[in-house]
This record gives sequence, C-alpha cells and structure tokens, in this order.
Amino acid sequence: MCGTDACLIKCSPVPSATTETRENGTRDTLMNINLDHGDPTMYESYWKKMGNKCDITFSGYESLSYFANGKSLCWFLESKLEEEIKRLHNVVGNAIVDDYYIIVGTGSSQLLQAALYALSPTDEPQPISVVSAAPFYSSYPEVTDFVRSGLYKWAGDAKQFDKDRPYIEFITSPNNPDGVIREPVVNGDQGILIHDLAYYWPQYTAITSPASYDVMLFTVSKCTGHAGSRIGWALARDKEVARKMTKFMEISTIGVSKEAQLRAAKILGVLSDSCLDPTLDNFFEYSQSIMTQRWQKLREIVKANDLFTLQKYPLQYCLFTRDFYESHPAFAWLMCKGSEEDCEKLLKGHKIQTRSGRKFGSDPRYVRISMLNRDEDFNIFLQRLMAIQGLTNGN
Amino acid sequence: MCGTDACLIKCSPVPSATTETRENGTRDTLMNINLDHGDPTMYESYWKKMGNKCDITFSGYESLSYFANGKSLCWFLESKLEEEIKRLHNVVGNAIVDDYYIIVGTGSSQLLQAALYALSPTDEPQPISVVSAAPFYSSYPEVTDFVRSGLYKWAGDAKQFDKDRPYIEFITSPNNPDGVIREPVVNGDQGILIHDLAYYWPQYTAITSPASYDVMLFTVSKCTGHAGSRIGWALARDKEVARKMTKFMEISTIGVSKEAQLRAAKILGVLSDSCLDPTLDNFFEYSQSIMTQRWQKLREIVKANDLFTLQKYPLQYCLFTRDFYESHPAFAWLMCKGSEEDCEKLLKGHKIQTRSGRKFGSDPRYVRISMLNRDEDFNIFLQRLMAIQGLTNGN
Repeated sequence: MCGTDACLIKCSPVPSATTETRENGTRDTLMNINLDHGDPTMYESYWKKMGNKCDITFSGYESLSYFANGKSLCWFLESKLEEEIKRLHNVVGNAIVDDYYIIVGTGSSQLLQAALYALSPTDEPQPISVVSAAPFYSSYPEVTDFVRSGLYKWAGDAKQFDKDRPYIEFITSPNNPDGVIREPVVNGDQGILIHDLAYYWPQYTAITSPASYDVMLFTVSKCTGHAGSRIGWALARDKEVARKMTKFMEISTIGVSKEAQLRAAKILGVLSDSCLDPTLDNFFEYSQSIMTQRWQKLREIVKANDLFTLQKYPLQYCLFTRDFYESHPAFAWLMCKGSEEDCEKLLKGHKIQTRSGRKFGSDPRYVRISMLNRDEDFNIFLQRLMAIQGLTNGN
Repeated sequence: MCGTDACLIKCSPVPSATTETRENGTRDTLMNINLDHGDPTMYESYWKKMGNKCDITFSGYESLSYFANGKSLCWFLESKLEEEIKRLHNVVGNAIVDDYYIIVGTGSSQLLQAALYALSPTDEPQPISVVSAAPFYSSYPEVTDFVRSGLYKWAGDAKQFDKDRPYIEFITSPNNPDGVIREPVVNGDQGILIHDLAYYWPQYTAITSPASYDVMLFTVSKCTGHAGSRIGWALARDKEVARKMTKFMEISTIGVSKEAQLRAAKILGVLSDSCLDPTLDNFFEYSQSIMTQRWQKLREIVKANDLFTLQKYPLQYCLFTRDFYESHPAFAWLMCKGSEEDCEKLLKGHKIQTRSGRKFGSDPRYVRISMLNRDEDFNIFLQRLMAIQGLTNGN
C-alpha cells in the first residue's frame, strides 16, 4: 500500500512536469503530473516574495545537546517554537492554546502514533479499535497497523463501528481527502477522540471558532508549506497524555531536530507578523487568493462537461478574515460521473497521477488530487483535464 | 523505565552544574551533575574553534518539498548528505560504503526500529525474538517493546538465548555501556544481525578494519556531537531490506528533516576536510586528545583508592591514525568493589547522576557514566569522585 502523502516508492520518482517543460517545451504531454501526494510546493512563491525575512543561520557549535532550552514538559521542545505556535494560534484564532501542553513531533504522522500510544489502554488483553469515517486519510490504516501493535488496531470506517467497547476515533477536519468539516460519528460512551486539524487554516476553510478538543494535531507542512522540515505539533489538554506523548517521541526518535524546530519558529513568526503588519504581504490573503483562483478554474472546467463532479462546500463566516469564505481544500475530491468506474486509471491514462478513492476507504470512482503543486504543474493538469473531457466527448 | 540516552522525564531536568558555577562559585557542591545520559556537549569546543566554517543558512523558500533532490532509493535522503556520509567513511576507513544502500533516519533509534521492521518475518504467528548480550544498551528493550509489536519482541540477554528458532541480535561495537569490542554471541543458524556502530569512530576506539556487515547503524550524535540534529544513517547491503527500512521511515515520519540533513552534510564535510587538510585542526586528533586526558584523569582517581574499578581495554593498531590506540569510550563502566551494592545510589548521594547497571541487564554494582559532558561538569565529577573516596576512607 502506498499510503502517505509523500509516497514515491511504489509511485516511482516521477520528474516534475515543470522541469521537463523548461528543458523541452514540446514534451509537456509526455510527462506525468504527480498530484498523488500533497506536496505543498505552491507556497514557494510566497516565501520567495518575503526575501531574506525568514533566513536563519546555524553555526557549527549550536544545538549539539539533545535537550532544548525550554522549560516545557516536552523536554526537547525549543521555547522559541513553543512561543511562535501559541502566538500564531492566537493571531489566527483557530485553536485555544491556554492551559494546553504542546508536544512537537517529526511531522504530525509521528504525533498521531504518539497520541495512539498515549491514549490506548495498557491493561486490556486486546488492542483498542481505531476508526475514522470514510473517506478517511489513506495513511491512517497503515500508520496504525504497520508494526502490528498490541495496543491499538485499525478497525476501519467509523460509520460501521457499532461495538460496545472502547475505541479511538480520528476526526480530520477539514477532512483529507474531501475537505468536509467533520464531527465525531461514532458517539459511543467509550470513545477517545483525536482531532487532526492539519487543514484548519484560513487558506483552506473559514475559521468558525477556536478549536478546543482534548488532543489536536497540526503540521507546518499544510500551514506554511514547509513539508521538508517535518515539524508538527500537538495540543493536549491532559498533562498525563502530554507526558505519554512526549515519552513516545523520546523512545521513537529521542526528540525532534533542533534545526527544523528553530527554522519553523522563524517561519511561523514571520507568518504571524504578516498578519499583523500591514506593510507585509499577508500570508493567508495571498494563499487564499491562489486557492480561490485554482478552485474557480477547476470548477469551471469540470462544470463545462458532464464527466466529473466535485464536492461542494458551504459559505461560512470566517472569524479571522471577518468575511464569508467558501472552503478551498488542499485536495480536490473528484468523481467520475459516467460509466468509468476507475477514475485513477482514467486520469493516469492521461498522465495525471492521482490517488484512488479506494485508498481512502471509498469508491474507485473518486480520486484525490493535490491542489498544492507549483503553478506550472497545476496549469498542465487543467489543460489535460480539458483534453480528457474533449477527447471523451469526441469518442 | 527511563532508558534513552537523553531521558529527562523521570530523571527531571537538572540544571547543569556549569551554569550554576558561573552564577555562584560557592554552590558547586549543591548541584547535581547529570552524567546519566550521553549528551555530547564536549564537542562544542571543537566546533567553536572552527568559527564560521560550518555555518549554513536556510532561506524561507528552500526545502519545502517532502522529496529530496537525490536519486537514492531512500527518496527523502539529500544527495549532499549521502555524498558526505560516503566520503567520511572512506576518509576514516571504518565502514565499506560501496554497494551499500544508505537510509537516513531521525537519529539511529528510529533506524533501529526500521531495521527490526525490515528484518522481521511477516508470515510467522509469533513475533521474532530480539536479543543483545548483557550489558546491553538500556534503550533496546523499550525501543523493541514500547508499542507491543506483533512482529518483534525483546527476549533479553543474548547469552541466555538458546532457542532453535529465528532471532535478531543487536551487536553494539564498541559496546554501550562498557566500550568493549563485540562479536555476535548466539551464533545460531537462524540469526539476523544488526550492527550498531554508533561508537566505531577514532576518538573512541582503534579502527581495526572497515566494517562490512549486512546492516550497520551510525549516528551524527556520537560522531560529531550534534545530537540535537537527530540524524543517523544505516548502511544496508540488501536492496529489499533498504527498501523496507525506507518504507518504515515513510510511514513513521514521512522522511527526515531537510534542515537537519543539510546541516549534517555540511558538518560531516568539514570533519572530512579537517582530516585531509593539514592547515585545519583534525577533529579526531582533537577529540582523541580530550578523551585520552579525561580517561587518564579518571583512571588515576579510581586507581588511588580501592573503592571502584573500571573496565580495561587492549591497545590496538588504528588504521586511521596509523598508531596504537587504547579505547577511550564515550561512557565509563564503573564498578563498586566493596560492600556497596548500589553504585548509582552511592554516587547519587554525592550529587552525581549516573545510570545503574540494572538498566543494562547487568549488576547494580555497576554504573554507566557519560564521558562526553562539557569540561566544567567533567571536572566537578572528578572532584566529587575524589571526595567520595576521601570520605569513604575517612569513615
């Protein structure tokens, strides 16, 4: 199974169409466009505009120790990062941070495992069931089961879970793959909830209230686009849960890269500044504008034909922008309407690599398509989608 | 259990004696010296001497992608790091790299888990037994068992393992905690070996031949001292093993921080340069000199009294320095000789925090003591050790 957002092992390292276009303008149609994973290279243009504001230099003698300079319960968390995470949530208003413990992770995937470790009962003979409503993030089953833990076990679609026993439910909101705002679906007496809020940022959806769940996961990858840094964070209300999550990180990787933490702190700081200082280019306005344009173009092309449909989203009032905003998710959840039953295969035939609905516990008539690639790739994708529709009409 | 080298959760964050000394010269004897974990801050002095040679600057628009720029099977491995790892092994002569696959990890702890994942049979009803000869690295049991994997299970001291079934043996050489050069001990028909070579560098031991085992683990933490970067690497001979280890890293953390990789590449590059360019201060000569002095002082103090003993090491010819060298391990493995049966407790009573032999599957008369702290801490440790011996004689 090729589940993670970044998987290239089975997908094979496809050179970006962009590069090939530059080398040979005539070869566009021969190259694959890889929209399978959610690589957020779209954001490079913003950070280029910011010039040297985010520059950070490390000297050879810095950050040798395992330990961070902070006084956090999470002993490897750099205090500067803790500070900037709190500041950003306060600026954006998407999560409560007061009275929460912050745990830093090597991306939010690792924190997801830390949360499972911290929340699973240790005195049960059977592993606790882990569920999420389909379509769910394609990595959840694999992340839960890859080492066949005796503490927790993937139990599939939350909508099918009806057992009268403890369970853990992942609530991804906005949801990956379909961008929908979600609530728990099992609502059993013995449920433990993990809120994956990777996409709860103003460029993707309206901020309707500050989240204040027991365990909330965020990642720099989807917030600022710095996926290569592998920095995520959890907000945990309970001290014992935070302690156990920290313990997981300690056993798993003895903490998190200091360079990545300090650079993330710098970038989150500039992001917050950009929201507060009118002389700077507001990050969220900039990225909202790109997402809005991309979604508009995609919807126009899809609408012009009867071959595909896209998920629709309500218009909601955003407390951050103080305006109404329709969700513009990081992924398009596209469905083939006609007789074609394998949407991934159809698009692959036209050199568009996407991820089948099957991998999200859903129907192969659906695919997930990344909306976060560089402009060049996104534009080629649109051209090919038009061509398919044209070709299909012609057939 | 408080197993990892960097654990401060149960050990509580003890301020370094150094800091306190600077604030108040008279308070030395009140502060704990934490020599429990192997925090390699000793190396800061070398990197300070190197001035800005290792400086590295990241701009805001760099390294956003999950993917590295290399063509390695390990899709997130930066090619510059791969190149510098190979170069350093060739310069030092401590491992064969030709025809090996390199997998980068968030420290070697993560790679240890990746190796277990890659090497465990997937078609067995019972998890494979994982063993290591006592005294073994205190984290092995916890790293193996923390999520109660159904693939692998800690089975204790390799010397006690006599079952006629498949097993995985960790061979740590030089060994943590006792610095001894090791060979496999089970030598069964169905053994799978993982060589943890974190300390196989010239400052710790003579390089007697280039290692060429099936799976070898190394870490920047113990080589250059940059533990905060969390960069380790594995050399794997078999392509399928390398592929599965990469898959583990992908599921576990979707790769490894690009900042940490690129900075590690820079530092390893300067390290290799320092060995080749006579105008530079050779890193290994510098660190050999510190280790030799520290061990000499410690041995003198221990020898002056009949309370403790230290492990002895043979003099061996080092192919790297072209001279004979006695091992000067990163940890001292100290034993109480007298009636005192809990060496950790004895030292703790004198504000020296160490790690009990019990945690290494050994005797509580032993403790492991880090030899890699800053000078100030190491010197206070020596003073206190002298004081204990004095006090004990006086009683």
